[in-house]
Amino acid sequence: MIELRSDTFTLPTAAMREAMSFAAVGNDGYREDPTVLELEQRAADELGKAAACLTPSGIMANLAGLMTHLPRGGSLLVGDESDIYRHEHGGASICGGLVYHPVTTAPDGTLPLDALRAALAETAGEPRLICLENTQNRCGGKPLPLSYLDAVRELADEHGARVHVDGARLFNAAIATGVPAAELVRGADSAQFCLSKGLSAPIGSILAGDADFIAGARRVRTMLGGTMRQAGVIAAAGLVALDTMVDRLADDHRRARKLAEGLAGVPGLELDPAEVVTNIVLFDVTVGTAQDFIDAAARAGLAVLSPGGLKVRAVTHSGTTDADIAAAVAAAAVATADLVGAVR
Amino acid sequence: MIELRSDTFTLPTAAMREAMSFAAVGNDGYREDPTVLELEQRAADELGKAAACLTPSGIMANLAGLMTHLPRGGSLLVGDESDIYRHEHGGASICGGLVYHPVTTAPDGTLPLDALRAALAETAGEPRLICLENTQNRCGGKPLPLSYLDAVRELADEHGARVHVDGARLFNAAIATGVPAAELVRGADSAQFCLSKGLSAPIGSILAGDADFIAGARRVRTMLGGTMRQAGVIAAAGLVALDTMVDRLADDHRRARKLAEGLAGVPGLELDPAEVVTNIVLFDVTVGTAQDFIDAAARAGLAVLSPGGLKVRAVTHSGTTDADIAAAVAAAAVATADLVGAVR
Amino acid sequence: MIELRSDTFTLPTAAMREAMSFAAVGNDGYREDPTVLELEQRAADELGKAAACLTPSGIMANLAGLMTHLPRGGSLLVGDESDIYRHEHGGASICGGLVYHPVTTAPDGTLPLDALRAALAETAGEPRLICLENTQNRCGGKPLPLSYLDAVRELADEHGARVHVDGARLFNAAIATGVPAAELVRGADSAQFCLSKGLSAPIGSILAGDADFIAGARRVRTMLGGTMRQAGVIAAAGLVALDTMVDRLADDHRRARKLAEGLAGVPGLELDPAEVVTNIVLFDVTVGTAQDFIDAAARAGLAVLSPGGLKVRAVTHSGTTDADIAAAVAAAAVATADLVGAVR
Amino acid sequence: MIELRSDTFTLPTAAMREAMSFAAVGNDGYREDPTVLELEQRAADELGKAAACLTPSGIMANLAGLMTHLPRGGSLLVGDESDIYRHEHGGASICGGLVYHPVTTAPDGTLPLDALRAALAETAGEPRLICLENTQNRCGGKPLPLSYLDAVRELADEHGARVHVDGARLFNAAIATGVPAAELVRGADSAQFCLSKGLSAPIGSILAGDADFIAGARRVRTMLGGTMRQAGVIAAAGLVALDTMVDRLADDHRRARKLAEGLAGVPGLELDPAEVVTNIVLFDVTVGTAQDFIDAAARAGLAVLSPGGLKVRAVTHSGTTDADIAAAVAAAAVATADLVGAVR
Repeated sequence: MIELRSDTFTLPTAAMREAMSFAAVGNDGYREDPTVLELEQRAADELGKAAACLTPSGIMANLAGLMTHLPRGGSLLVGDESDIYRHEHGGASICGGLVYHPVTTAPDGTLPLDALRAALAETAGEPRLICLENTQNRCGGKPLPLSYLDAVRELADEHGARVHVDGARLFNAAIATGVPAAELVRGADSAQFCLSKGLSAPIGSILAGDADFIAGARRVRTMLGGTMRQAGVIAAAGLVALDTMVDRLADDHRRARKLAEGLAGVPGLELDPAEVVTNIVLFDVTVGTAQDFIDAAARAGLAVLSPGGLKVRAVTHSGTTDADIAAAVAAAAVATADLVGAVR
Repeated sequence: MIELRSDTFTLPTAAMREAMSFAAVGNDGYREDPTVLELEQRAADELGKAAACLTPSGIMANLAGLMTHLPRGGSLLVGDESDIYRHEHGGASICGGLVYHPVTTAPDGTLPLDALRAALAETAGEPRLICLENTQNRCGGKPLPLSYLDAVRELADEHGARVHVDGARLFNAAIATGVPAAELVRGADSAQFCLSKGLSAPIGSILAGDADFIAGARRVRTMLGGTMRQAGVIAAAGLVALDTMVDRLADDHRRARKLAEGLAGVPGLELDPAEVVTNIVLFDVTVGTAQDFIDAAARAGLAVLSPGGLKVRAVTHSGTTDADIAAAVAAAAVATADLVGAVR
Repeated sequence: MIELRSDTFTLPTAAMREAMSFAAVGNDGYREDPTVLELEQRAADELGKAAACLTPSGIMANLAGLMTHLPRGGSLLVGDESDIYRHEHGGASICGGLVYHPVTTAPDGTLPLDALRAALAETAGEPRLICLENTQNRCGGKPLPLSYLDAVRELADEHGARVHVDGARLFNAAIATGVPAAELVRGADSAQFCLSKGLSAPIGSILAGDADFIAGARRVRTMLGGTMRQAGVIAAAGLVALDTMVDRLADDHRRARKLAEGLAGVPGLELDPAEVVTNIVLFDVTVGTAQDFIDAAARAGLAVLSPGGLKVRAVTHSGTTDADIAAAVAAAAVATADLVGAVR
Repeated sequence: MIELRSDTFTLPTAAMREAMSFAAVGNDGYREDPTVLELEQRAADELGKAAACLTPSGIMANLAGLMTHLPRGGSLLVGDESDIYRHEHGGASICGGLVYHPVTTAPDGTLPLDALRAALAETAGEPRLICLENTQNRCGGKPLPLSYLDAVRELADEHGARVHVDGARLFNAAIATGVPAAELVRGADSAQFCLSKGLSAPIGSILAGDADFIAGARRVRTMLGGTMRQAGVIAAAGLVALDTMVDRLADDHRRARKLAEGLAGVPGLELDPAEVVTNIVLFDVTVGTAQDFIDAAARAGLAVLSPGGLKVRAVTHSGTTDADIAAAVAAAAVATADLVGAVR
């Protein structure tokens, strides 16, 4: 089975496993795990922030960040297609008493400045946090332009709002745009990225920001149950991920484009390969439902999934080879043929 | 430095590191990590429950459990000396809107049945959860008797309440009492235990209960940010912990008693060695403050801490040797002599 | 000053004051206030529901209702222009841990069925509550058609969702459409209406639903601090409101239309009088900002306000006379002339 | 039936009803109700605070106060016998994410300074609010001494904590101790008192504090649904209460003592009349259960209730006459005779 459902299926590399096996560890609950300390400093540096904090997941990095930024009742200006709003189970309202204010996401993954300005006006007087997602998953892995990111910072400053970047795939954005990650989040008060996904570490995400913010986020993390003991075993894999897995994201992007071009030639599938600039390929199914296609593809040896509606998503990652791309296109063709046959 | 601050300082064994390095892993967010599935089934079996769920910490295992049992506004009958009430940062109120009803803890670690009965009467008409802690950390690692545990179950049934056991050190209780862990929690609707602490795995705790409960707890865990990706790497260490580290807890207990006997002979320290039946030694300092002693002990090569007031705590674990015990007693004697000198 | 900012400025009538002064009262905390009991039964009957509960405000009637319907983390499908989402300060997230899912409101005040269907699909598996607002304030007091209300009920049933109607101005809808209030909420699991606003009682709103629901809502109301003692004094005014102030809403509607026709003839103001079918007149200012107009109108003796953007709102109510309408149009003309002069 | 269950059964006086009927009113949601403004200023002055805010109940005055003082996760140091902890349904945890830390209440209604000091030590580093109750309801209406109140202020300052006084019956304390209410709360950052209860207004409580605090509390009040429209109708009664009902609390106290002396002579009832210094009489029933006595007393024409356990409570108020006291004692004697007979 060619696994393209998500880049969350990446497996740790041999170097990661070795690093985990030899990692110097301590009790991170007491800030005494040297490998965690090293990873946190390294990650903070990568993002150009003063401090960083390891969490067991991107959901917790986001949740701890949001709760640290905003008091009870604060307003979250989030994209209506963002993972924070769509896939994180309302944690900010449940745990933080925060209020989601979804803003319509543009097809390029940005929250239009006018829409943000209107949302800021509506929530005037409240503490506000603007949440951006880079790359934007549900818009097909779109990276956000630096000029846009800077413009949001300016807008936030005008309205006394803060900015958080959900950069679960931030390094995909950095590689795709050629702009270093630290530049991409220079206007953000906080940012998170995942050591899993494309970077292929088994567990862990990083939340970065200034020192006071991270001190607060650590308290929230502990309360949520995200402070781990000898976490150096996973931090060790995270360090390998930062050392060895960032540049190779370009291969994931190249393969995703190749996949898109192949799928564009399959009757019954619709997409514009030029839209694919990172590792996510979104396409429409025009024969049968998305689920019909997914089932047929699975029978043909290709695992993909639907983010909703008629869309299907295929994601390349460190486990994907050039041969997989060719095979995936072939499997998709078999699947659609299957569906056309079924329709007839 | 002899490390007796806590059994949370245990380091993974060579077998654990090897297991982590070779673990078969998958995406646990999709329930596709074979090692996690194996660990969860194994842990459920150990506790005699239908299902179990891996979490990144005992705090989260407790928090997810409490939120799954009780709706917004439900009442938590907890010991006033319990870790859930004292050391988990109010998570149940913050995230769950739950209300703590602390009950005075008896010196033997039990919540007296009369006190529980009164608390149940006061909260009549509300959903209630009784939380027990076994062993009871802040009472010196006291294991709860099976007869008491069964009596609480009966009381809970009379009042329509549920029972959760915070068994962070449940296997210490099992070893000390000779009663299997599954028996100790047979009256509990849910129970958690830590793979770290005495069992020495680097990361992870287990929440167990019936299938519906665990399905609900998984949703809460995801919302809190506790669902991890290729969590098999830590589950592998957890399996080794269950295989190899349970029986040896008897050594920790023996050493703790030995330590207690030694410390009882040190002028300026007060304790009853007969009280020490698991791996936690609590003693009073009668020269200077607890912090004075801790500082002096650190200078003499012994790391201990204070759980509050005049008490000092020393905890034996898999990293503690017989030689350490002798050295710890000697260091404690040096420290008190130091303090007496300072007082003079 | 002609007061058209809101119908929340209505003053109690002489009959209400007299009723308050002679009301038989008791302790409503013990359900022993006869006038409250009478009002609650009367209000339940008006809405065709089994039970009802008096609250100090419409915000609390909504909040208690929402929290009774949904557990922590439940999803609220609300209009993005609804008062619940825009004007109730995030109470459902803060107090209830509920998650707002705003749906784009159509100009006629409905939440399009397709949009609701999509939101129900997105939140599948969660407890959901659809909240409708009738009349829809921010769309100019639009009443929702019975056929639409029934269609929402059907949709809710298909998806296992519940329906709450924020009927702060429900009787305006009933009078404008000629459909009894009980018919308008026949498809709703719960509904609230305000005794203040057009009905002109000084204090109080009603939440109605089935008996179990209202029993639950009473508990939430008490927890929020909304259970009042000798509340018969305000219930007495509420009974007079239901007896004497419902039919006269037709006058408010007639005057609002008249006002709209007058304002449509004022250069610098834009609106379509045919859109005005209840007591709310929304218009655009084309000279200067909404605030400029509001200030100029205030100088000319007319109080109005802006619900946001370029819009201005004027609301007729029991304190508005035919003469006020003529005077209000004249004042608006003076105000715009003033602004045109200022612009020149 | 002689109504001694609670002073929450007081009925508005003729002067209150008249004041309600003639009150100048406006929209308090816009701060335009002149009678509310007058009451709030008057109440602030009575308590020696800069500002005050009317709420529909004492529960809301407390809840809005607590949520304004403390962020999510803040610690409430409350008496284990306090109404905030025992009778307000966990609102601070549900709505505010606050954590109750009950402190054992002394028989005189104080929270011993040592116990407070210990609780402050345990919660060091967290935002904390000490809540006192004056008079202390469940300890038999005990007023707190000024020296104690000042000592708590000093302690709070040492630990950076705030102080809130739940003064539901603050004026009973003032009358009983001869210390003006403003002096009693001079060490409190905030205080609430009820216009209902002994002061006999039908609805309403007051929360007072400094201007910023009250501005914050108003926002919380609105979010909770406690901002009312033409609230001048109830504020008018509140002003009459402050003008006419404070000094007469001495009569309630005198009658309560008289009642206590009478009950002390009834076989089967036990109490020390010297303990009764305000309007609450607590006594033990030594024949049958508290509920048996309550039922028997009801048959004999006396309404009382049990605050829990074997205790019964009788409360004098503005509806209680000297004749009622004699009749109540007689009824209690009949009731106990009845019970003794039943026992035989």
